[in-house]
Amino acid sequence: MALRHAGARVRVLTRSWPPDLIVSREVLADLAIYRGDIRDEAVVDAAVKDADFVFHLAGKSGSAVSNASPVEDLDVNLRALLNVLVACTHLAPSARVIFPSSRLVYAPHQQLPVTENGLLAPISIYGTHKLAAERYLEVFKRESGLSFVVLRITNPYGPFQRREQKSYGIINWFIWRALNDLPLQVFGEGDQLRDYVHAHDVVEAMMLAATTPAADGMTFNVGSGESVTFAHMAELVAAAAGSSRIEHIPWPENQARVETGDFAADVSLIKSTLGWAPTRALDSGIAGVIQGYRAMSAGKAERPGTR
Amino acid sequence: MALRHAGARVRVLTRSWPPDLIVSREVLADLAIYRGDIRDEAVVDAAVKDADFVFHLAGKSGSAVSNASPVEDLDVNLRALLNVLVACTHLAPSARVIFPSSRLVYAPHQQLPVTENGLLAPISIYGTHKLAAERYLEVFKRESGLSFVVLRITNPYGPFQRREQKSYGIINWFIWRALNDLPLQVFGEGDQLRDYVHAHDVVEAMMLAATTPAADGMTFNVGSGESVTFAHMAELVAAAAGSSRIEHIPWPENQARVETGDFAADVSLIKSTLGWAPTRALDSGIAGVIQGYRAMSAGKAERPGTR
Repeated sequence: MALRHAGARVRVLTRSWPPDLIVSREVLADLAIYRGDIRDEAVVDAAVKDADFVFHLAGKSGSAVSNASPVEDLDVNLRALLNVLVACTHLAPSARVIFPSSRLVYAPHQQLPVTENGLLAPISIYGTHKLAAERYLEVFKRESGLSFVVLRITNPYGPFQRREQKSYGIINWFIWRALNDLPLQVFGEGDQLRDYVHAHDVVEAMMLAATTPAADGMTFNVGSGESVTFAHMAELVAAAAGSSRIEHIPWPENQARVETGDFAADVSLIKSTLGWAPTRALDSGIAGVIQGYRAMSAGKAERPGTR
Repeated sequence: MALRHAGARVRVLTRSWPPDLIVSREVLADLAIYRGDIRDEAVVDAAVKDADFVFHLAGKSGSAVSNASPVEDLDVNLRALLNVLVACTHLAPSARVIFPSSRLVYAPHQQLPVTENGLLAPISIYGTHKLAAERYLEVFKRESGLSFVVLRITNPYGPFQRREQKSYGIINWFIWRALNDLPLQVFGEGDQLRDYVHAHDVVEAMMLAATTPAADGMTFNVGSGESVTFAHMAELVAAAAGSSRIEHIPWPENQARVETGDFAADVSLIKSTLGWAPTRALDSGIAGVIQGYRAMSAGKAERPGTR
């Protein structure tokens, strides 16, 4: 929608079309759809050719799952990115690539808030590949002048996010569970701090990253700049959903091994450079997502095909 | 030879057998050869099964070449390493992996000498993959207790090294050129400092890394600890080879883009932890390599098959 409002002609490279999300006709209209897998060079070439901006949103998320399937993570998150960068070099040399990196490139247990100069030492294959991806962008810039901006996103949540899988965002997963009367499982005390950022704020950061000339080659944290405990986030979801219970369970080993300790992003660089600021408070943000899911469910029930 | 002297039963995974190097029968006897490509999981599994030590020496070298062929570098230097690490996890869980990393993981233009805590910011795909490989080892250790040691090697040279390609070591390539009456090309003034380390010293570091319990999970610089200018190295080669000329030419663009500036490794950590020290001076080391190549050429000429 942000691209639409900006007057862009939008292309989407996607494996699943029509999407398994319920989105408005307005969003779907006039998109150029490139159906395929980002690992396939031919469809990447077609989608990238002559583009002005490339938002590299395809990928696979999740620390624990990446450590369990490192080769798949390599293929989807690194090899496929090389397809995109090589395609840009040859077919869209003046394109700017907007790359969503992650707070997971930082070493665990940093002094808070973590600036972009924080120690880089990921403890997952996922974080390792995000960091390597950042280096790829630097190399391609140096080799062929490719323009890029890296956004190290904290814990995003928001409407339309896939919610069936925890690895795609804990808040959306919790909301999905709460709306289905399933308990919200909190590992241990849940007192680790997290910085949750709303998807609308992330989108705004991406638009500014794409359109601000001075951002070329820069790396920015994108977070709310505020941190809350994991347990508090769960309470907010439970309260907003109206009925749910929180269960404290012991840390599963595979999750404990990728736990990063407290995290909060210093977002002063993106504020000063791009004039960006997060606008959504966590409680109202969560309420909005719940409202959106409920409206979508109602809409779905009224669809002709499902009667 | 070092492994043979240590009484090890040695397995070799190699794409080319018999080797295209001329080595003594003593070295070749009683090796278990696994012929295949490290990208092939099956042969990696077979070679790794029940191993006590895995020296991960297969790979592709060179900054400029990696930037020109990033996908190939990914396959050979990262994906194949994952094959090895996954194989270790399942088939040799108590093996120690000795991983040859590179000075090229460091940012260019560091304060000299560079310690293991130097800034990590490679400017090539090759360096990016070496750094990602180091993180893989950390992740596998954390996930499954895999033992490893990382050796960040400076500029190695020595007998038996492939010499037809510059990316496999500039000294050997220069020696090969000098012995074939070809000029030694020095880019610009050649006043960049380099730290050249002899292969025998690297082998000794690998043996100590493999057999020192306290080294588990550690990362060490492996260099001579002394730095000379590139131009001086070229002069040493020319002098030792007896006849050659040095040509100063402008920096090719692709080489200038991966030039790291001066480099010298701080090797105090490996000295204090492993009791290792470099033993070969550069001038006598170069002379020894030249002597070795000449002896091999003489031996080759006397082989029955070539008469």
